[in-house]
Amino acid sequence: MSDDFLQCLQSTAERVSARLDDLLRQRAKDARPPRLIEAMRHGVLNGGKRIRPLLLIESAALFGVAKKDALQAACALECVHCYSLIHDDLPSMDDDDLRRGLPTVHRAFDEATAIMAGDALLTLAFELTADEACHYDPAIRSELVVLLAKASGGAGMIGGQILDIAAESKTIDEAQIRLLQSMKTGALIRFACEAGAVLGGANDTQRRALISYGEKTGLAFQLADDLLDVTSDAGVMGKATGKDQERGKGTLVGLVGIERVRELLSQTVDEAIGALEIFGLEADVSREIARFVAERTH
Amino acid sequence: MSDDFLQCLQSTAERVSARLDDLLRQRAKDARPPRLIEAMRHGVLNGGKRIRPLLLIESAALFGVAKKDALQAACALECVHCYSLIHDDLPSMDDDDLRRGLPTVHRAFDEATAIMAGDALLTLAFELTADEACHYDPAIRSELVVLLAKASGGAGMIGGQILDIAAESKTIDEAQIRLLQSMKTGALIRFACEAGAVLGGANDTQRRALISYGEKTGLAFQLADDLLDVTSDAGVMGKATGKDQERGKGTLVGLVGIERVRELLSQTVDEAIGALEIFGLEADVSREIARFVAERTH
Repeated sequence: MSDDFLQCLQSTAERVSARLDDLLRQRAKDARPPRLIEAMRHGVLNGGKRIRPLLLIESAALFGVAKKDALQAACALECVHCYSLIHDDLPSMDDDDLRRGLPTVHRAFDEATAIMAGDALLTLAFELTADEACHYDPAIRSELVVLLAKASGGAGMIGGQILDIAAESKTIDEAQIRLLQSMKTGALIRFACEAGAVLGGANDTQRRALISYGEKTGLAFQLADDLLDVTSDAGVMGKATGKDQERGKGTLVGLVGIERVRELLSQTVDEAIGALEIFGLEADVSREIARFVAERTH
Repeated sequence: MSDDFLQCLQSTAERVSARLDDLLRQRAKDARPPRLIEAMRHGVLNGGKRIRPLLLIESAALFGVAKKDALQAACALECVHCYSLIHDDLPSMDDDDLRRGLPTVHRAFDEATAIMAGDALLTLAFELTADEACHYDPAIRSELVVLLAKASGGAGMIGGQILDIAAESKTIDEAQIRLLQSMKTGALIRFACEAGAVLGGANDTQRRALISYGEKTGLAFQLADDLLDVTSDAGVMGKATGKDQERGKGTLVGLVGIERVRELLSQTVDEAIGALEIFGLEADVSREIARFVAERTH
């Protein structure tokens, strides 16, 4: 990673976190119960890397959209991601106590509050996307709401989580692992890239290129995650590791081995980078994101 | 209630249920896991009275909107209502085993599936609202998404549920009960009426009248519910009754007595009906809804 890229990553993460902080502060004024807002803040303002917002912002930037003009959509996307983490961590789901080195929301508050904080973040995501501050054209906003709902709903992220939980109690093959991962993690990353295209008024070719880039980057993200689950330790990850194996969850590493997954990951990153060819040098930051996703250590 | 009204109530409920059935069948084709769709269907297609969709459809009808053209927005609203029931029934919230005479979703399936079925219904609600099938004008669709998100989010329904749970462990006064009820139940009923105005292209006066009607009808709904909790039995309600009292939940009945609540209810229904004056005879069905909400026995 170049220093320039790492600086871009950090400054975008800071801008996203600052805006999310702002948005939640504004909402705290509307008689929303303080405890709910505190739980939402705990789930959102926890030092995340903001990879999905970065993908959205950089995809939109390919069409000349200023970072500030993509920030609202990026924050909405991050709200969906954070809600999904809060709900996935619940005792009846993955039952995790730690997330990014801090107690998960249901440990810091309680289970009911965690469920509702997640619900409220999901709801807020759609409010932010449909609001004028997201884009001046309501047709763009409506399209983004539909895309975000599809990416995060039953045919996307939620569906993938259901398949993931079901996979704990049975053996699944490579095709099934790929399907569940493409839904659980891939759909929202693909959305990040497509949303950038929609915000930027991309033509069909450009949009297809970004969708392909998003799909490959999503797959690379998941492959890297699978590798980290077996090679990293809890101190670095800020959450429990080795849990997938422990639970007998079907992962590609378990099925085809570490070396084969490393090869696949390298090949997938090349494909993600290749998908950006039509954008020329302008897309160098997006190329670095694909590499970063594959090489990250936590 | 006139026979005409009861027939209208029934035929609208049937149309809403049939469309929800359709929409969930369509989604079952998109590789969504069958178990998730089954849990969503269990939570949605359970013989509900569809009062909120009726309010929306009849409010829109005041402006000449055909019932079929308000059906998508009405179904979206019912998805939000049903998701809220699924989550409220969870063990960490109200811990209810029965809903409309059937096992609640977490009893019929499991807790994780119930949480995700609720999440998926909330997500679907926004997809339906932002979709072209809701209204041809994307500005209307975006406005409805924002209104629905605000009504169901932290300053509305979810906020009310947090206050409600907090109220179990302390004494709250009449003003606090009214605030929590206006958020928990009132916000979505108010949305139903305002959404009809938005779909119908109402002017400001008409919209304010429908908002006022919605607020009063929401209050009447809650007062009637409080009365039913102490006067009805589980067989008629299809769910556990007397639970509010048992949990020491602050209700107006507990605070001011049954007779005073009956008076308040009657007065609130008059106010709801009065708010419709500018619509003349056209609004007679809406007037009957306010009466029905107050007089229902379950």
